[in-house]
Amino acid sequence: MIPGYFWLIPLSAVFVLYMATRFFGMMKNEPAGTERMVEVATYVRNGALAYLKQQYKIVAIVFVFVAILLAIMAFKFHLQNHWVPFAFITAGICSGLAGFIGMQTATQASSRTAFAASQSLNQGLRVAFRSGAVMGLSVVGLALLDYSFWFVVLNLFEDALPQNDRMIVITETMLTFAMGTSLQALFARVGGGIFTKAADVGADLVGKVEENIPEDDPRNPATIADNVGDNVGDVAGMGADLYESYYGAILAAATLGASAFATSNSDLQMKAILAPLLIGAAGAILSVLGIFFVKTKENASNLELLRSLGYGIKFSGLCILLASLGIFYFLDIPDMLWRLWGAVAIGLISGEIIGKSSEYYTSQAYSSTRYVAEQAKTGPATVIIGGMGVGMLSTAIPVLAVVTGTLLAFSLMQNFGGEKNIIMGLYGVSIAAVGMLSTLGITMATDAYGPIADNAGGNAEMCGLGEEVRKRTDALDALGNTTAATGKGFAIGSAALTTLALLASYMSAIKGSMLNSGRQSIILDGNNILVESLTLADIINYFQIHLLNPNVLMGLFIGAMLSFVFCGLSINAVGRAAASMVEEVRRQFREIAGIMENKAVPDYAQCVKISTFSAQREMIIPSLVAILSPILVGVILGVSGVVGLLGGALSSGFVLAIFMANSGGAWDNAKKYIEEGAMGGKGSNAHKAAVIGDTVGDPFKDTAGPSLNILIKLMAMVSVVVVGITVSFS
Amino acid sequence: MIPGYFWLIPLSAVFVLYMATRFFGMMKNEPAGTERMVEVATYVRNGALAYLKQQYKIVAIVFVFVAILLAIMAFKFHLQNHWVPFAFITAGICSGLAGFIGMQTATQASSRTAFAASQSLNQGLRVAFRSGAVMGLSVVGLALLDYSFWFVVLNLFEDALPQNDRMIVITETMLTFAMGTSLQALFARVGGGIFTKAADVGADLVGKVEENIPEDDPRNPATIADNVGDNVGDVAGMGADLYESYYGAILAAATLGASAFATSNSDLQMKAILAPLLIGAAGAILSVLGIFFVKTKENASNLELLRSLGYGIKFSGLCILLASLGIFYFLDIPDMLWRLWGAVAIGLISGEIIGKSSEYYTSQAYSSTRYVAEQAKTGPATVIIGGMGVGMLSTAIPVLAVVTGTLLAFSLMQNFGGEKNIIMGLYGVSIAAVGMLSTLGITMATDAYGPIADNAGGNAEMCGLGEEVRKRTDALDALGNTTAATGKGFAIGSAALTTLALLASYMSAIKGSMLNSGRQSIILDGNNILVESLTLADIINYFQIHLLNPNVLMGLFIGAMLSFVFCGLSINAVGRAAASMVEEVRRQFREIAGIMENKAVPDYAQCVKISTFSAQREMIIPSLVAILSPILVGVILGVSGVVGLLGGALSSGFVLAIFMANSGGAWDNAKKYIEEGAMGGKGSNAHKAAVIGDTVGDPFKDTAGPSLNILIKLMAMVSVVVVGITVSFS
Repeated sequence: MIPGYFWLIPLSAVFVLYMATRFFGMMKNEPAGTERMVEVATYVRNGALAYLKQQYKIVAIVFVFVAILLAIMAFKFHLQNHWVPFAFITAGICSGLAGFIGMQTATQASSRTAFAASQSLNQGLRVAFRSGAVMGLSVVGLALLDYSFWFVVLNLFEDALPQNDRMIVITETMLTFAMGTSLQALFARVGGGIFTKAADVGADLVGKVEENIPEDDPRNPATIADNVGDNVGDVAGMGADLYESYYGAILAAATLGASAFATSNSDLQMKAILAPLLIGAAGAILSVLGIFFVKTKENASNLELLRSLGYGIKFSGLCILLASLGIFYFLDIPDMLWRLWGAVAIGLISGEIIGKSSEYYTSQAYSSTRYVAEQAKTGPATVIIGGMGVGMLSTAIPVLAVVTGTLLAFSLMQNFGGEKNIIMGLYGVSIAAVGMLSTLGITMATDAYGPIADNAGGNAEMCGLGEEVRKRTDALDALGNTTAATGKGFAIGSAALTTLALLASYMSAIKGSMLNSGRQSIILDGNNILVESLTLADIINYFQIHLLNPNVLMGLFIGAMLSFVFCGLSINAVGRAAASMVEEVRRQFREIAGIMENKAVPDYAQCVKISTFSAQREMIIPSLVAILSPILVGVILGVSGVVGLLGGALSSGFVLAIFMANSGGAWDNAKKYIEEGAMGGKGSNAHKAAVIGDTVGDPFKDTAGPSLNILIKLMAMVSVVVVGITVSFS
Repeated sequence: MIPGYFWLIPLSAVFVLYMATRFFGMMKNEPAGTERMVEVATYVRNGALAYLKQQYKIVAIVFVFVAILLAIMAFKFHLQNHWVPFAFITAGICSGLAGFIGMQTATQASSRTAFAASQSLNQGLRVAFRSGAVMGLSVVGLALLDYSFWFVVLNLFEDALPQNDRMIVITETMLTFAMGTSLQALFARVGGGIFTKAADVGADLVGKVEENIPEDDPRNPATIADNVGDNVGDVAGMGADLYESYYGAILAAATLGASAFATSNSDLQMKAILAPLLIGAAGAILSVLGIFFVKTKENASNLELLRSLGYGIKFSGLCILLASLGIFYFLDIPDMLWRLWGAVAIGLISGEIIGKSSEYYTSQAYSSTRYVAEQAKTGPATVIIGGMGVGMLSTAIPVLAVVTGTLLAFSLMQNFGGEKNIIMGLYGVSIAAVGMLSTLGITMATDAYGPIADNAGGNAEMCGLGEEVRKRTDALDALGNTTAATGKGFAIGSAALTTLALLASYMSAIKGSMLNSGRQSIILDGNNILVESLTLADIINYFQIHLLNPNVLMGLFIGAMLSFVFCGLSINAVGRAAASMVEEVRRQFREIAGIMENKAVPDYAQCVKISTFSAQREMIIPSLVAILSPILVGVILGVSGVVGLLGGALSSGFVLAIFMANSGGAWDNAKKYIEEGAMGGKGSNAHKAAVIGDTVGDPFKDTAGPSLNILIKLMAMVSVVVVGITVSFS
């Protein structure tokens, strides 16, 4: 039943998780710095833990509630497999765990990175990067392990059906698990994003602008909250986000593999299901190798720093390209070996192009960000207009890369087996998505290390470490902005590919839910057709999923609108939360005598509390939008409306997310470029303008933008889960 | 052949044009103000004429070039009716003429409005508003006349076919005329938008911020260019834009009428074709009545001013509702009388909702704009974040209004004649679009009067008229921001409806182009089917226009991306053009001694020249994007890719345009609200922050945003025109 080679997957997961603990141990063995540094780090850690505790509490309530609903759907109405509610919860727990581990690591790493940076840049990079690696490896390890666990469990219990049908049921059941990760990720991204940006904006506006004290000055009451925010938003939030991307991509590929090869021999079908997991497993192991590759020399320029990270990623990418060829060879699938390998290569190359393009548009080493910095000379208005323009133009390359990659991967596989087959083609696309994310272990390490470096800089500043240290952590942090934009590019690029696969899953779930609801036959083009024997083309035809159907078109409009409204909600949430923070910081400066003279300690905890409370309150409505809109649209506009909704949210949300991530990255690094001495340097009018640009970019790149890919997938997942309801209203 | 009642259409067009000349005469009869006021107005007029001359020169070259291409397609390859090239040119000329007339009126009206405002607010409003009316009435009059002319010509010459087929050929031929208006409108909007914002930003940044002189101070070298910009961008550009919307909506409705009733008796078909034109004609006449209705009392608050305009519009709207019932009754179509009337009502109501929603989100009388003003207290970053958030949220109501309106209008008509019929349903949607735009004569007057008031304020400032006058013109201008946002809402709302109709036209054009290229039969689902007898459903099926076809999905992505890239291009163009303007203004302050002491006159003409040159250079690439993308996508991805492209551009562009228009309007009026004394009033830090918000909003609301609806329609038109090429590559 389960082939022997399957066990390589949990095995490599365990190995990777073991390596994560090793990296964690290495980091812990580094000196934690002076007493003051440890003290500051403890403040930050406690704040972060307090926040996460609060967030997980709310998430737990929501999860229990949704699980009960799923259980009712499963046990009472038989709309779902009865394993779904349980797996929904484990998936959510694993995703939350990945974020938690990352945050634990990051908060331990900050003082250690600051201390290492006081010795050399290379030391600083190593500590920060390896701490990031803990998170990258935890994410892939946990995802592979969770998958393996449920694959075994379901295979043990679901043994009534014939093998091929069983695999379809198992993979489709497992696909809905991903709703757990998506929901967890949405809460983590939106809540964390609101927290971090409220604290950041609040700290900057009062501290830097009104009181004229430097960033991360310990006299600023919001400075701890700001550093906590880097952890809960940029580390824990991003961890849950990328866990969701990775898990979703693998699940979608496995599901499509099962249905594309439903009529092949069951051996081939099993290979198609497990191939994406094997690629993931190989990628995980190779990421470990790549991580050891990253190092840099002292006084490295930004470009050199970027390159040294790039070498690690490229090394892993090339290895995975070879390894996947080995995997397909080992699986003994001569007919489609080169096609599948081509799809993996397409995914890796598209990912590389998206990454390069993010790097080009957001690094101060290149002309776009320098142009934005140049615009700062004429004030805040032009710097903001410039950043917007750059961000909008920056959508072209990633979209064209995804479009080209999708079409190539699709056409490679669609003719496999002789005749055109959409599901087979989409299987190729989903393999490309897995290829793109196969090196996630290392790309995520390059992403997670940014906030660690940022926190290290904060720690250095608060503990009065020398100018040189701060300069080094700033160099690492600037790099982090670019790698973060790259990470977001990967997340959104793979989300686009994965959502295409989810669309297909949605269409195939329709048939099952028609059968479940007792519909045995339908009338199509005047003929009475058994639901049992409906093809995908029949379903497309029956529900009129074409672009001249007004329900589809109106779904497109609503989907596009929702991605803007979702961003508007989270941006306004940041605005409101920041306003409360500003009030609180002003109050403390006013009421606690002696803060400015370093004679009194500000009430850091109160600021953390305000950000926590605001984040919790403000994440509710955006999350409800994501969950309720597919249900409402399904009830009102039926299946065709839902497909339109997903298409509209996907296309607009994809482009909007890239725009926001790159605009935000460009503003941030334009500011850093000026701080490095360009356009008059720190304190110049250009610098002041650039700080404003950076503040505007904050909710763009860290709250609204990166939540969009989760929104899209969550909407797709919810659509799949409630398809029974939608079909009954169609 | 042509029924007698047809002649009511040209007759009412002539009446409305006559009334436009009357309003023009009334305005000319007002006193033109002091010598200095006339002098300033002459500067502005000459600048505007110089710009338009330059723009029309370039547009003429492009038009001749495209007309030759169309002629080759028509006469050599028989891909087009041979009237297309000629009508393409007259349509472009009429559209340009509407803008030109509006601009002539506006430049004559500015000093007169300023002088009238020096007497009373009500006087100022009357002069500005009636001048705006000249343009509104010219637009509808010219559009109806151009249509009538070609309808007669084509009916005279195309007499070989049987009546029903002939009407299809005639209306489809006329639909492609709209490409002329769209192309003209795109150049006018993009070029004019770049001109006006480059001058505005340049004048503000150096004048207000660096030299600390008030807006429209005659010492500012860019001040004339700034006032010229209001005319070429906000008047001429908007005129061409709304001409395009109106003409396009009527043409699309007539075309769908012809094909929806292709198999009915030819009398009914003719009624379906002429109904939208009769509604337009009635609306035009009723707009004249509404215009006489608008007046206000002295010391009116903003809300009262808005109301007085609103009464005029509502009065016209109610009248057109009654009149259209009369028209349908007169046409003697009992079976569909209530259905069509329902569609008109839906269009009017949706338009009213969109307008109200723009008003709510952009008027300082309501909480959203006040919230943005409130955010100015904490600086430019929060005011910009606030405006973004508000703009994004503001997309919900207009989208839902269009969605609901479309679905209702569609379902009213789709069952007409017994069985479900997409084309019949879309005919209902296009009638709703005509209903929405039926009061364009007056809604546009409320739109065009804004820049007139703005210019009057400039004139008053430059001529040193009292504080009171400026306050009155400012009140009028503030209102103009809101009515402009409303006008943009109408343009984009109707564009969404019209583009749906164009999608249908695209699908029906496919069949013709298959026949033209000699394809007699196709194989569909294994059957050989004659192209002649293909139904819409067959074509949808054959070209796989469904959302699981990767070509469609990738088209969606590309379409969404292009709307962002197009905005990015035009925003960056403004940035670059503004930078040249800033340099020039700085140079003049530096090199021309005595400007600041009023001892020397700045070189106004040089600034006009710079804006003109920049606008001309920068409008080329965005326009090429609009024209080439449907051709390229058609060649590479075929028919399904083009349909996806249009769907993606439409859904994303629609939402993006609302976002940009409303954000921009909210920033502008938040600034005005502060200038009226809120949040510390003029000169406060909040005011400075709000000025920055306003500057960021400028390219949003006056360059990129309002060009999007033209982009969408132009892409659709180009797709229809080159469908022959696309089909041969599919």
